[in-house]
Amino acid sequence: MHIIDGKKIAKEIEGRVKTKARRKKIKIATLVYEKNEESMLFSKLKERAFERVGFEYETIYFDKLDETKLRKKIKKLNDDDDEITGINIQLPMPGIDYNKIIKEINVKKDIEGMHPFNIGSTLLGDEKLIPCTPKAILRIIEYEGIKLEGKNVVIINHSNIVGKPLAMLLLNRNATVAVCHVYTKNLKEYTKRADLLITATGVRGLIKDEHVKEGVIIIDAGIKKEGGRIYGDVDESAARMAKAITPVPGGVGPVTIASMLENALLAYEMQKSL
Amino acid sequence: MHIIDGKKIAKEIEGRVKTKARRKKIKIATLVYEKNEESMLFSKLKERAFERVGFEYETIYFDKLDETKLRKKIKKLNDDDDEITGINIQLPMPGIDYNKIIKEINVKKDIEGMHPFNIGSTLLGDEKLIPCTPKAILRIIEYEGIKLEGKNVVIINHSNIVGKPLAMLLLNRNATVAVCHVYTKNLKEYTKRADLLITATGVRGLIKDEHVKEGVIIIDAGIKKEGGRIYGDVDESAARMAKAITPVPGGVGPVTIASMLENALLAYEMQKSL
Repeated sequence: MHIIDGKKIAKEIEGRVKTKARRKKIKIATLVYEKNEESMLFSKLKERAFERVGFEYETIYFDKLDETKLRKKIKKLNDDDDEITGINIQLPMPGIDYNKIIKEINVKKDIEGMHPFNIGSTLLGDEKLIPCTPKAILRIIEYEGIKLEGKNVVIINHSNIVGKPLAMLLLNRNATVAVCHVYTKNLKEYTKRADLLITATGVRGLIKDEHVKEGVIIIDAGIKKEGGRIYGDVDESAARMAKAITPVPGGVGPVTIASMLENALLAYEMQKSL
Repeated sequence: MHIIDGKKIAKEIEGRVKTKARRKKIKIATLVYEKNEESMLFSKLKERAFERVGFEYETIYFDKLDETKLRKKIKKLNDDDDEITGINIQLPMPGIDYNKIIKEINVKKDIEGMHPFNIGSTLLGDEKLIPCTPKAILRIIEYEGIKLEGKNVVIINHSNIVGKPLAMLLLNRNATVAVCHVYTKNLKEYTKRADLLITATGVRGLIKDEHVKEGVIIIDAGIKKEGGRIYGDVDESAARMAKAITPVPGGVGPVTIASMLENALLAYEMQKSL
């Protein structure tokens, strides 16, 4: 069983981004709800990543969440063409309708690739600013040299930020794609036939040996915190049957941050090419 | 076996559209390449449909296809806020990059639901202007009272206008969705387990008894012309095993046109509510 080294993949991506970003004035604004501990933690992780590749950044903290206030701030950042080249919203933002607020972001500054225009372009095969987790999964697949055409791929997740856009990216590459989730009645029947299984449920150890076939490749984007440790979706018994698997932590996570840096560079280039 | 009556469903939808459209000045512009016989035929079908529900319309014929000319015409129609409330492009338009040209259409006049912003909104579950064939399939499912949550749905088609947006609509309703296509290696293994099978390949008689389980519901969006007749994807042997099936012709086709009329009404309402 080959353990896919997410940190190494991320490092290579970051290296390329850093080289290309030299002498470019890339500056990212991150909107954070300061009363959410997890948000604060993730925004710090992002800041460190921005520093590594030489981006400037500005983290804007909200102590109260108010859609009108958020909207106003986004408008200001959108219009600030000399300074801010990328905007991202650190989730969760309780009480805020993310689908509504994401539409307010300038399409070309949307480094999360979640604006409907960008998501729609992704579906249509005009892939530019792609959501970060699906993009990371694609980068891992490419890095590992996994051919997608005609492969049986099963995704366990049908969210807006992971499962749905990921399914589109895989269909764009002619994989056969089945999307499962909590309402799926016979999960095992799907997962057993997967050549490539991508899981992102946050249910620790959900995928056991009985769920997979020998030689499957597994990408585990699940995250579950328990007792100060982080666990993925895949049980050791399933991992043993895999030809290759991403670990948790150190798999999809670091590549997701690297993918956001890639998006930030692309967003800059899209703005400057006009 | 129950034959689903697409004409009846279409008629009911058209009846509702007609009632709601009364005293509204809805006018649709259709762009057609006059050297394509099929395009000409379809645009006539649309004109008759617009007449039935009391829409005005304007069909604009191009004898030569030129992206710059098309783009200019679209811009004029976009800006014409007192007259044109909906725009659609009759495909095929050989040599024109549809993905590029569709972006030029005013989002709120895009009655085909194919602008990236509208497609992206569909993916994100903010369903407003939805592509017409997927919308028609959804209308048939609703009309027949088919519950989607947790159902095993198989789609054979992964195009931008059918398979991909349809998969999104079904995932939004918590179906388990597998998307197959010409690169799929073991089609039968997928289709055999489908509670609901939706096929749109244009391969006459592709789906035979060996492909389906007893009691499956089949929606056949395939169209293949042979010897002046139109055939769907489903062989008689498979149809006999189905609990319900849409015929070809008289199934998805008429509902697709009705769905475009629904979109045209919705587009009008979206423009006037501002």
